[in-house]
Amino acid sequence: MRERGTGSEDDVLERIRRVFAGPLHNGSGGLRSAAGSRFLSLGIGDDAALISGTPGHETVLTCDWFLEGTHFLRDQHPADAIGWKCLARAVSDIAAMGAAPRCFLLSLALPRELTSSWLHDFLGGLRRAATRFGCSLAGGDTTERPEVLINVTVVGEVRRGQEVRRSGARPGDLIYVSGRLGEAESGLQLLRERKRGLTMREPRLRKHLYPEPRLELGRWLSEKRVASAMMDLSDGLSSDLRRLCEASKVGAVIRSDDVPSVGMTKVGRKRGVDPIRLALHGGDDYELLFTVSKSKATRLPHSVGGVTITRIGEITPARDVLVADGGSRSRVLKPRGWDPFRSSK
Amino acid sequence: MRERGTGSEDDVLERIRRVFAGPLHNGSGGLRSAAGSRFLSLGIGDDAALISGTPGHETVLTCDWFLEGTHFLRDQHPADAIGWKCLARAVSDIAAMGAAPRCFLLSLALPRELTSSWLHDFLGGLRRAATRFGCSLAGGDTTERPEVLINVTVVGEVRRGQEVRRSGARPGDLIYVSGRLGEAESGLQLLRERKRGLTMREPRLRKHLYPEPRLELGRWLSEKRVASAMMDLSDGLSSDLRRLCEASKVGAVIRSDDVPSVGMTKVGRKRGVDPIRLALHGGDDYELLFTVSKSKATRLPHSVGGVTITRIGEITPARDVLVADGGSRSRVLKPRGWDPFRSSK
Repeated sequence: MRERGTGSEDDVLERIRRVFAGPLHNGSGGLRSAAGSRFLSLGIGDDAALISGTPGHETVLTCDWFLEGTHFLRDQHPADAIGWKCLARAVSDIAAMGAAPRCFLLSLALPRELTSSWLHDFLGGLRRAATRFGCSLAGGDTTERPEVLINVTVVGEVRRGQEVRRSGARPGDLIYVSGRLGEAESGLQLLRERKRGLTMREPRLRKHLYPEPRLELGRWLSEKRVASAMMDLSDGLSSDLRRLCEASKVGAVIRSDDVPSVGMTKVGRKRGVDPIRLALHGGDDYELLFTVSKSKATRLPHSVGGVTITRIGEITPARDVLVADGGSRSRVLKPRGWDPFRSSK
Repeated sequence: MRERGTGSEDDVLERIRRVFAGPLHNGSGGLRSAAGSRFLSLGIGDDAALISGTPGHETVLTCDWFLEGTHFLRDQHPADAIGWKCLARAVSDIAAMGAAPRCFLLSLALPRELTSSWLHDFLGGLRRAATRFGCSLAGGDTTERPEVLINVTVVGEVRRGQEVRRSGARPGDLIYVSGRLGEAESGLQLLRERKRGLTMREPRLRKHLYPEPRLELGRWLSEKRVASAMMDLSDGLSSDLRRLCEASKVGAVIRSDDVPSVGMTKVGRKRGVDPIRLALHGGDDYELLFTVSKSKATRLPHSVGGVTITRIGEITPARDVLVADGGSRSRVLKPRGWDPFRSSK
């Protein structure tokens, strides 16, 4: 972690150091970061961090913007959730390769007036996420800025040759997703409505604020060599399935009735909220989208680590991405993945 | 590289891909990125990049903000120089560990109106730097934003046990710097004055806009096991020497007359520009600051790869950082490292 400036910038650095000092224990008393700590030979405090890869493994590397005004709103999103989510969404890319996260770099720019209680809450959420995912803080960069800017780089590992790429889908492969789609967007809508009595027990709100990258499922699929292609759903199924198909040079047909969508309340239905539309285009779910050859599909359980798996369609040789709406007719599925802070689709 | 949005954001990604397609050749026809390409098993286009470390080496990891308004000004700094410098300053951290850069991630946020010629020039400078440093683009993240925001993560490698940390300085070690200090700040002053006839042949301007990380010197010092501690000078000698001393739990005394400073013109002297002050507190030089035990100091040449090495002082057991001004008297060297966009020291 580079040290810059004096006064409150050094304070920020010192607070980050203190929060991440010592090994990461998870709630059940287990030491989740054992692999992360061994992996990290030299952490915060030098020009760069030093990591020592596990023999027989490759290193996986990803980074993600998380910017005030673009990806979150400071007056609507709790600092604790911003801390959790900035790491969770980058870790989701590691899960999507079938890899395990090891350590991360935090680049944080923030206004001086947020260096006290906001920073405390932010680091609390970040540390809980780091503990949960077994991912140690290795370094970063801090500076002052009128808005909160976050960039997270996550480093993971996967056994050589076991990574699952986007490009491996073949015609005839079956298409699956984990969890329920559209939940996070539905949660964002609840947050915006600021309904009285809304608590974290509401699963859609929890999924929007505290997404859980599907690490266990991703690793299971890679270790068992079951998935032919995989990616995470960050921008919405309609946009992301197209990307997987383009990378694999194939097409797809899915059945909208098969896509696991969020349950709708009476009020939601009255307002014309369409759960299928949410499931096809809603972003921020961080579920896994993956393909499996028919011969291996029998080996797939209904769930892994409590996360359900649902078949939604099939890979085709023609390069179109189609959706069938119940009847025999199918139409092109346009990529309408959603950016949570644009007002319309 | 995550693909987000449609229209111009996809265009941005496609342009980045095209600019970085194919191996990196340097001007003299050599293939500088051979190691970088071997290192990178999977680059842009998936959820994450995949790197395959060299046996017997550790992976070195650093990241750096480079933000409009904080680190550069869009109306004063050419896009080409912003592209070069965002990578050069992160690579300088790799040099300071005695490591070699291999690949990097680019996180770029920019206004839509800059996605044409500004982006072209920016990517041109970035690609030239990548070629020069032998550092392949591995991935990143792009988004739209009213101001240009850049975060660069660089991954390097160093033979196991050969990294040079900040914490290894011992009392009696001699203190050295590479190059001349204060040149970059002096170059920034020239840029601000917008003097007629100012060209890139002016070395101080070149050093401010296109800094050269001291990779060859850093590696020489690590491979020969000559340096006991090292860091790069990004914020200014007075701030950075203190950090090295704190990490090593030692103090230092330097002689201001020995610090290699920038030559001053008559005009500069008339204006009261003090080259010693520039050398002690000027930022952005990206030279190396390192310590060498007396027994190894005889092995130090006067220069490595054309970069001069100058002895400026000695490490002391007392924890103060002192500067002697010619006579026998010495005073505490206060950390007055400079942020180029603050108006006063």
